Amino acid sequence: MVRALLTAFAFGFTLAVSVVATAQTTDPLSLWNEGATKQAIIQFVKDVTTEGGSRFVPPAERIAVFDNDGTLWAEQPIYFQLAFALDRVKALASQHPEWQNKEPFASLLKGNLKGALAGGEPATFQIVMATHAGLTTEEFEKIVRDWIATAKHPKTGQPYTEMVYQPMLELLTWLRAHGFKTFIVSGGGIEFMRVFSEQVYGIPPEQVIGSSGKLTFELRDSKPVLVKLPKIDFIDDKAGKPVGIQKHIGRRPLAAFGNSDGDLQMLQWTTAGSGRRFALLVHHTDAEREWVYDRQSSIGRLDKALDEAMARSWTVLDMKRDWKSIFPFEKQ
Amino acid sequence: MVRALLTAFAFGFTLAVSVVATAQTTDPLSLWNEGATKQAIIQFVKDVTTEGGSRFVPPAERIAVFDNDGTLWAEQPIYFQLAFALDRVKALASQHPEWQNKEPFASLLKGNLKGALAGGEPATFQIVMATHAGLTTEEFEKIVRDWIATAKHPKTGQPYTEMVYQPMLELLTWLRAHGFKTFIVSGGGIEFMRVFSEQVYGIPPEQVIGSSGKLTFELRDSKPVLVKLPKIDFIDDKAGKPVGIQKHIGRRPLAAFGNSDGDLQMLQWTTAGSGRRFALLVHHTDAEREWVYDRQSSIGRLDKALDEAMARSWTVLDMKRDWKSIFPFEKQ
Repeated sequence: MVRALLTAFAFGFTLAVSVVATAQTTDPLSLWNEGATKQAIIQFVKDVTTEGGSRFVPPAERIAVFDNDGTLWAEQPIYFQLAFALDRVKALASQHPEWQNKEPFASLLKGNLKGALAGGEPATFQIVMATHAGLTTEEFEKIVRDWIATAKHPKTGQPYTEMVYQPMLELLTWLRAHGFKTFIVSGGGIEFMRVFSEQVYGIPPEQVIGSSGKLTFELRDSKPVLVKLPKIDFIDDKAGKPVGIQKHIGRRPLAAFGNSDGDLQMLQWTTAGSGRRFALLVHHTDAEREWVYDRQSSIGRLDKALDEAMARSWTVLDMKRDWKSIFPFEKQ
Repeated sequence: MVRALLTAFAFGFTLAVSVVATAQTTDPLSLWNEGATKQAIIQFVKDVTTEGGSRFVPPAERIAVFDNDGTLWAEQPIYFQLAFALDRVKALASQHPEWQNKEPFASLLKGNLKGALAGGEPATFQIVMATHAGLTTEEFEKIVRDWIATAKHPKTGQPYTEMVYQPMLELLTWLRAHGFKTFIVSGGGIEFMRVFSEQVYGIPPEQVIGSSGKLTFELRDSKPVLVKLPKIDFIDDKAGKPVGIQKHIGRRPLAAFGNSDGDLQMLQWTTAGSGRRFALLVHHTDAEREWVYDRQSSIGRLDKALDEAMARSWTVLDMKRDWKSIFPFEKQ
């Protein structure tokens, strides 16, 4: 079984999921334990897809949006895109002698991650911009592709693309089988996620929404290129998420899935629509198989959104309780 | 036939096209005269969709982008969105006494369109911003919906949604039948076009790319809304078009269709991709059925792009020569 899975992963996760499903059961959500969470999802999909029902929604309007970090794949001990940026800082350090005396780079290069990130979001953005900007979109794509093919998660030793939540892959596939268009709506970089979103999640680049830097079009040796500029274009987080949804989709989602306060406004916007809507928060409760964190975490903090979920009866997924397995590399 | 057409249009243009096709012939491009233009399109589609062929492209990568004004619908005597904005200026004038002495509004309200637009693009943007901003996205959608349902084109007396090029509707339908995802990439406002793009072109809102103002998310009486701000977010024209394509699609199109210098960079970007690509310019050459304009026109100027099309052997569609009929309301 493990070998079949590994082979299947070489051809993308969607295939892997179908292999699991076929081998074990015909339940399309076979990795979800029976209970209120699974039932809530199934009932929602039944409501909006039952023709002639009072809550039926035509396929064109079946939009489901998913946060990425902490919702589709893990985000501990640091956001994976930050791990990418840190590796880039190391790779580029010899071309930037000035970084030896300039924060946040100086701390980083001394191996002091905590010190480097003490500058908060501005420091993070400085790292991301310094390592992403100046490249053409094609150059950047190649760098991400090479990194994602070789980099390993510091705790599990697995490729980052295996740090995805298998039950969520099942859910994505199952929603699409019911006429949903699935979108990623993430604070992560749009160009970063698009490199692997189609292979890993079955989500094509045009259905990935994320934070972005400004781009400029120019001719280099008569060849048109798009160059990444060191300027923020859009931050797809918190109140930015409904804006990103409007910019890219132009239609309010029926269902939204997130895991942190950064997703609160996306869930508010989704559930404020008329008719049947669905909102779910992933609560990280599994210290053994994943991580435990919520209100106090600096990464993926879930505090205000958890209060609002309880007040509004949004579905709160308990990772430990609701998922039979989490990562594809776990023993089945 | 005319009556059948009119009935069909009430249910959307895609249906109308299929009625025409079924009644007259099985040629899916029945409104295109035989000749080099039609042949070039058919050959391109055949090349990229023939499995096992050296130029085959998988469906996920079959992206076709279309400019809107002058490519899918007419743009004379003024851009239709500008006509909308002018009607809004008149409707809002009583709430803005200061407009009586402030250009470009003063000239506009005196019926002097030429004077109002003498300020060039800044004047146009000022009009658009003044009439679009401050509204929630839902309020704006309703205003556009009401306007498009009632406004009439000054020359033909037809609703603007009938000022569309029927052969292009056929082409959109035919490309989609061959696995293409069709996108609009227009200098026009994204929120404006999305109101009618699905009904008129069969293009859902998430496949419409256009110019946009900034949006802000806020809670009004605890209800989440998105409010249009009087600030430009993105101009999807000229060098902005490849940028818009990258932001929204993240994948280089296989085929691009435009009609003016505003589309030049989109066609450059498209054709610079590897493998088989296709670029087409609509040349407005039909004084009787539509309009004749190119190098000297202030609207839809086609000058540099025409030179480049000839130098690079892009397909130049001659409206008079290549299309059997143009608008749906023409006598068949």
